Amino acid sequence: MTERLYLYDTTLRDGQQTQGVQFSASEKVEIAKMLDALGVDHIEGGWPGANPTDSDFFAAAPETSATMTAFGMTKRVGRSAENDDVLAAVINAGTPAVCLVGKTHPFHVRTALGVTLEENLGAIRASIEHLVTKRREALFDCEHFFDGYNEDPDYAVACAKAALDAGARWVVLCDTNGGTMPARIAEVVRAVISAGIPGDRLGIHTHNDTEQAVAASLAAIEAGARQVQGTLNGLGERCGNANLMSLIPTLLLKEPFASRYETGVNRENLPHLMKVSQRLDDILNRVPRREAAYVGASAFAHKAGLHASAILKDPTTYEHVPPEAVGNARIVPMSNQAGLSNLRKRLTDLGLDGAPDQLRRILEVVKAREDAGYAYDIAPASFELIAREELGLMVEAFEVKRYRVTVERRKNKYDQMVTVSEAVVVVKVDGEKRLSVSESMDETGSDRGPVNALSKALAKDLGPLQERIADMRLKDFRVRIMQGGTEAVTRVIIDHEDDAGRRWSTVGVSPNIVDASFEALLDAVRWKLCQPD
Amino acid sequence: MTERLYLYDTTLRDGQQTQGVQFSASEKVEIAKMLDALGVDHIEGGWPGANPTDSDFFAAAPETSATMTAFGMTKRVGRSAENDDVLAAVINAGTPAVCLVGKTHPFHVRTALGVTLEENLGAIRASIEHLVTKRREALFDCEHFFDGYNEDPDYAVACAKAALDAGARWVVLCDTNGGTMPARIAEVVRAVISAGIPGDRLGIHTHNDTEQAVAASLAAIEAGARQVQGTLNGLGERCGNANLMSLIPTLLLKEPFASRYETGVNRENLPHLMKVSQRLDDILNRVPRREAAYVGASAFAHKAGLHASAILKDPTTYEHVPPEAVGNARIVPMSNQAGLSNLRKRLTDLGLDGAPDQLRRILEVVKAREDAGYAYDIAPASFELIAREELGLMVEAFEVKRYRVTVERRKNKYDQMVTVSEAVVVVKVDGEKRLSVSESMDETGSDRGPVNALSKALAKDLGPLQERIADMRLKDFRVRIMQGGTEAVTRVIIDHEDDAGRRWSTVGVSPNIVDASFEALLDAVRWKLCQPD
Repeated sequence: MTERLYLYDTTLRDGQQTQGVQFSASEKVEIAKMLDALGVDHIEGGWPGANPTDSDFFAAAPETSATMTAFGMTKRVGRSAENDDVLAAVINAGTPAVCLVGKTHPFHVRTALGVTLEENLGAIRASIEHLVTKRREALFDCEHFFDGYNEDPDYAVACAKAALDAGARWVVLCDTNGGTMPARIAEVVRAVISAGIPGDRLGIHTHNDTEQAVAASLAAIEAGARQVQGTLNGLGERCGNANLMSLIPTLLLKEPFASRYETGVNRENLPHLMKVSQRLDDILNRVPRREAAYVGASAFAHKAGLHASAILKDPTTYEHVPPEAVGNARIVPMSNQAGLSNLRKRLTDLGLDGAPDQLRRILEVVKAREDAGYAYDIAPASFELIAREELGLMVEAFEVKRYRVTVERRKNKYDQMVTVSEAVVVVKVDGEKRLSVSESMDETGSDRGPVNALSKALAKDLGPLQERIADMRLKDFRVRIMQGGTEAVTRVIIDHEDDAGRRWSTVGVSPNIVDASFEALLDAVRWKLCQPD
Repeated sequence: MTERLYLYDTTLRDGQQTQGVQFSASEKVEIAKMLDALGVDHIEGGWPGANPTDSDFFAAAPETSATMTAFGMTKRVGRSAENDDVLAAVINAGTPAVCLVGKTHPFHVRTALGVTLEENLGAIRASIEHLVTKRREALFDCEHFFDGYNEDPDYAVACAKAALDAGARWVVLCDTNGGTMPARIAEVVRAVISAGIPGDRLGIHTHNDTEQAVAASLAAIEAGARQVQGTLNGLGERCGNANLMSLIPTLLLKEPFASRYETGVNRENLPHLMKVSQRLDDILNRVPRREAAYVGASAFAHKAGLHASAILKDPTTYEHVPPEAVGNARIVPMSNQAGLSNLRKRLTDLGLDGAPDQLRRILEVVKAREDAGYAYDIAPASFELIAREELGLMVEAFEVKRYRVTVERRKNKYDQMVTVSEAVVVVKVDGEKRLSVSESMDETGSDRGPVNALSKALAKDLGPLQERIADMRLKDFRVRIMQGGTEAVTRVIIDHEDDAGRRWSTVGVSPNIVDASFEALLDAVRWKLCQPD
């Protein structure tokens, strides 16, 4: 008999406290949809009123099966819940659930709020009651609960009980400073349950300041808490929150959790996990952590010679779970065998095939270029071009003789500083030279930069081939600097789509960002020309 | 009364199993010295004989207070310990201690070795006895101990006891596949101690496959193990080993550990921890993880507005340990959620001050620009320029009239395709116009792109100001596309440093990547001109 365990995601709120992270409203929408598809129970979208982006997000929040939740704080002492404008902004976001953070640590009540302990209890009670009146699912985040419990266990528990008695569906115990050891977390959770707050009303919210947020969350679950809060890839304030990318597969795949609990994420969805993790890094333009548990590219890489040879006999010798379960793949650098069968599968998917010698050559080219910074897993169209070249299936229909891009910033005739980007591309098609020039300008007359200008000039006049590329549209452009400092190499990934609904990604690498972009643009045109009309 | 706890570092052996990591012998020497200065008890240097670099390292290993340890495996069945050439190579490295890994999991004895359980026990016994004869401190690594214990507890314990009885100083329980939960680790360690292996002869070696290696190690210590194995920055096979950068400060600073145990690392050495971590990343040419516990640049960064204002009243409100204890520093970044008191603190740190009205205007500018994509928490020099402007403390010593960048790709006289980037910048200094041109070229004659060319041209001739910027060097360049598709805005962060050891970061935002870069470059020069000589 399994028990239900609830997953509460706070990527869009606490995750946004990560240094350097600032989601746009549209990025929040994409992430919310991704979380919903994965199967989390609550999505905390942000703090409406505190932040314009968060307000924009709630104004256009997507429909989700997960309960959309707005975050805020308990009403201030000295005004009623009805008259607190900060609280009103949170409620006005119109979400089915609202989570309010409040103090439960006497030191903070006195130092940060400067009110009496009884006033703080009253604020908790009135705020939660107000949410219930407004028919919202109410959650109460007990800030600094574990530190508060150390100072004054009775008061900390009294705060939690005040919220519960006022109608909170969940009371969440937060280890706000991230310094509590897992064993102590478990001990306190047990004590809170003994004090009369049932485990199925208790949540746990931990931080990674001692690198134990995942362990502390699991310890709380073992002690009886039934909601666990975390973020994608462990984003969050300081060292981050508990990482859902580690918690979810552990809860689903590992004992004693797998057979005891059930979550909203089912086993069928679990193989999407690695893609979810990577997509978040894409959005943030972060390099994915190779060594991340479960979803890192190295998580199932067996480098030690003893391990690699045993793995080939039986993967369970050195794997605690099968990599496919989380959408990951085994890497055995010792053996080319895995690489070859993998490659053959990819070619078959493209309708291509080759002799073993040709496949080995393709593998060599791919490996050498990936060492130089290319990434064919996220640029399959560029991979296809390599394969076609080695298999002799590439028809080079045109050649680029040269290009030149100019970016100029100067005053216009109205004495305003303006920027103009211009590109000239010279191609040879059917033995004939063709020279095209384009400037970069969007609908509003604003400059969009050198890559945009190059893209237009390259696709402007390919003579007899022009008709076949006329419906190509540049959709996305991502840049990553592959190493720090002066030795940096730039990798550019460009996405295109066409009227037939194809969407394809290509890659370019160079110390020169314009060159890298041009390489990716050129691959995009060459790939398009390989497609049937 | 404190008990002694021993730290065993395996960065140079298991850490080298990290995908993409291959230390040179001289790098190993540097790391060994760093570990010794920190105060670890054992340094496992590698597997002599298995790897030429490891043999080279042991041939020239530095003198250390820590016990230098060679790693190998138990003798093979069917030959004597004296006649096993693999074991001989390990012993011949001449280290005072030798650690041998052996099987303790019946499944592996049968699958990987293909010998009987009794033969394996004999191999363990004979190998350890041989080390003792050779007067080495002997350690036995029980591979797959926890999985083995699950299959056959009696056999797993019998292997450990065989090593102990044969004279091993330490018997190390390894969770080789990294899949065992901390609670189970603790349970098994207690059982092993009850079975007659004293805790002060027991070590623990964990992996991070469920992101719980640190917690599992601490659980083993609480259960009685007195040696803990780990690596710098958590390097290691797959997801890595237990991270000593998290374990060491937790053991020294956090209860219940701090008052119970003593290690070879003393409190006076602890403030070197962050430098040790960063130096390892330097050697590996890795970008340090900002969010790393204790030693990450963000570990004490307080972005949330509520946190930032409380931190100013009392740092213990949101810090579980003082950042100085591990050589780190508090960051109260400027961001969307920052408040006035936070801002005032930042200005005070810069030696600036302003009236409340001015502060409010600065906040408004920062907020508006962050909404447009700027990120001042990671570009404090650009923040300082905004503050100086609003406070009337900015002396605009020069003006950029215009610039032009050209990237051209064409054939050179040897008929090779080459790329050339060229930049022209026109500035006005002291009423006089100055025109500079630079091309981008590194030492090898390769083009480094338009940003490099612009950087050179901008800093080439500022007339009388030139001397003050002559020691600026561009160190890093990071690009992030802020939204998908054609509406994308590019954010560029650029780091510079100078001869005085200053390092500063600036930000630029524009749909045009060259424009965004130029803005950041210009801020860097303007900031440098604000500094005293």
